[in-house]
Amino acid sequence: MALLYKADPVRGEQWKRLFAEHAPDIEWRAWPDIGDPRDIRYLAAWQAPDDLETLLPNLEVLFALSAGVDQLDLDLLPASLPVVRLLDPGITQGMCEYASFAVLGLHRDMLRYRQQQLARCWQAHLLQPAAKRRVGVMGLGTQARQILSTLQTFGFALSGWARSEHHIAGVDCFAGSEQLPAFLGQCDIVLCVLPLTEQTRGILDHRLFQHLPKGAALVNMGRGAHLVEADLLEALASGQLSAAVLDVLQQEPAAADHPFWEHPQIWLTPHIAAMTQPESAFGVLLDNIRRHQRNESMLGEVDRKRCY
Amino acid sequence: MALLYKADPVRGEQWKRLFAEHAPDIEWRAWPDIGDPRDIRYLAAWQAPDDLETLLPNLEVLFALSAGVDQLDLDLLPASLPVVRLLDPGITQGMCEYASFAVLGLHRDMLRYRQQQLARCWQAHLLQPAAKRRVGVMGLGTQARQILSTLQTFGFALSGWARSEHHIAGVDCFAGSEQLPAFLGQCDIVLCVLPLTEQTRGILDHRLFQHLPKGAALVNMGRGAHLVEADLLEALASGQLSAAVLDVLQQEPAAADHPFWEHPQIWLTPHIAAMTQPESAFGVLLDNIRRHQRNESMLGEVDRKRCY
Repeated sequence: MALLYKADPVRGEQWKRLFAEHAPDIEWRAWPDIGDPRDIRYLAAWQAPDDLETLLPNLEVLFALSAGVDQLDLDLLPASLPVVRLLDPGITQGMCEYASFAVLGLHRDMLRYRQQQLARCWQAHLLQPAAKRRVGVMGLGTQARQILSTLQTFGFALSGWARSEHHIAGVDCFAGSEQLPAFLGQCDIVLCVLPLTEQTRGILDHRLFQHLPKGAALVNMGRGAHLVEADLLEALASGQLSAAVLDVLQQEPAAADHPFWEHPQIWLTPHIAAMTQPESAFGVLLDNIRRHQRNESMLGEVDRKRCY
Repeated sequence: MALLYKADPVRGEQWKRLFAEHAPDIEWRAWPDIGDPRDIRYLAAWQAPDDLETLLPNLEVLFALSAGVDQLDLDLLPASLPVVRLLDPGITQGMCEYASFAVLGLHRDMLRYRQQQLARCWQAHLLQPAAKRRVGVMGLGTQARQILSTLQTFGFALSGWARSEHHIAGVDCFAGSEQLPAFLGQCDIVLCVLPLTEQTRGILDHRLFQHLPKGAALVNMGRGAHLVEADLLEALASGQLSAAVLDVLQQEPAAADHPFWEHPQIWLTPHIAAMTQPESAFGVLLDNIRRHQRNESMLGEVDRKRCY
């Protein structure tokens, strides 16, 4: 019985050590040295190889090594194969850190102060109490809830929006496309951690920005494809949006002539909000393998219809 | 019975409205229109006028409109006059926001990413889990404790240092000058919120930096006079320190030729970490006035020997 690893080889060495130490009964194999393919029951991968059914005839579970699975073409996978997302607490923690940094930075005008510094200008601006700063989160899954809980520490006025109804203490929850305009209308800062699906692709567009209060700010920690980049430039130029913090882009790495690099109202980071870390992710993956072995349900199993 | 206000006139109008609405029994006077000086029992001021004893013969309490009182020359004030600091929850909240932004920014390499952005460089760097990032706070008063409690949300490895012994759950506390080197030796990020006294003036100097692990980072949210600015430049140049986030300077505003403006390892903000806000401060000030009227002890009364 073996697990095949197909992702970044450097972190692969860390995974391998953790399996050897804590789960010696599971034989470790690293792509492309798969050995006898009939031994492989589990695939832990960022992207799946083509023709999985033929290649790994005894495969029982595909463990995605990421919180989102939009990089996988679910339609090409065997219909009966369970696909499991990685609910790594390290990823969630990284997302909370980044979200707090971004929201606090926007709340406290830090991009402006940084530009003032480089212009040798010492000038304070009025400070808005956090309780009057309305922060809305798009997406209300594990990560979003943890982000909301962290932002609660600072006393922001919080709301959230998702496809389906949610109830979270201290958070005004909105659901479905009918309630999206009402949600947006009360967001000074809107933060996207949606999964990328056909429904959410390009959701951060001109139409959505028009529903925000004039001068609102955007944080995108979802996927680059959530954002229509040309629409953001237009919204910043018109003043409809005042600033954006972006960790993801349509095309990564950004091209050398991408207009976001030197845009004075855009804070751009190279997809670093969170990274899967074997130290924190290993326990979650192993727990799911043991659950599968005991015929129990796994955590993070993907609903193929919802795509997350 | 009147209160004399001597500080920023714009915020003075807000204070005046709050007193008129919530404490009409206390007559409001604003410097320099003091009227009959014998009426004045309370002085709410940023800096005290000279010769207070002669000027306001019936003065009972001096309320500083700030959390620190280093701007007052305590030796020039009547010895029996109680001096009370302003423990404004709005100030504490502002300090927590700034401290979290600064610590998260250093923790997540955000100054470097910002420079990469302007250099059109898309490159991720290794991420350290918060539990392995050792953050030490110098000062363990109200603000420091609230900052520590906020940082706890993120799971940082926390310690604190103050002149006297403290016990705070989840925080390694160090006390006195003997334990200062041991405290510093385990700080990846050290954050100063000390009061400014003769003992702490210039405490952030070459000697102190030498006790930090090589490559540590500094956040100064205390007073500019805590930091020996030339020593910081030297420590950054030698690599002993990797970065600094500074909200205060020896001389504010900074001179046009100050070396911190364009220093690539310094994040400089114009003394904006926190601002006294009448909305949140009024309740605290009024509560202290009522305590004084009932002969109860006031919150934030300054110990003249400790200077805070």
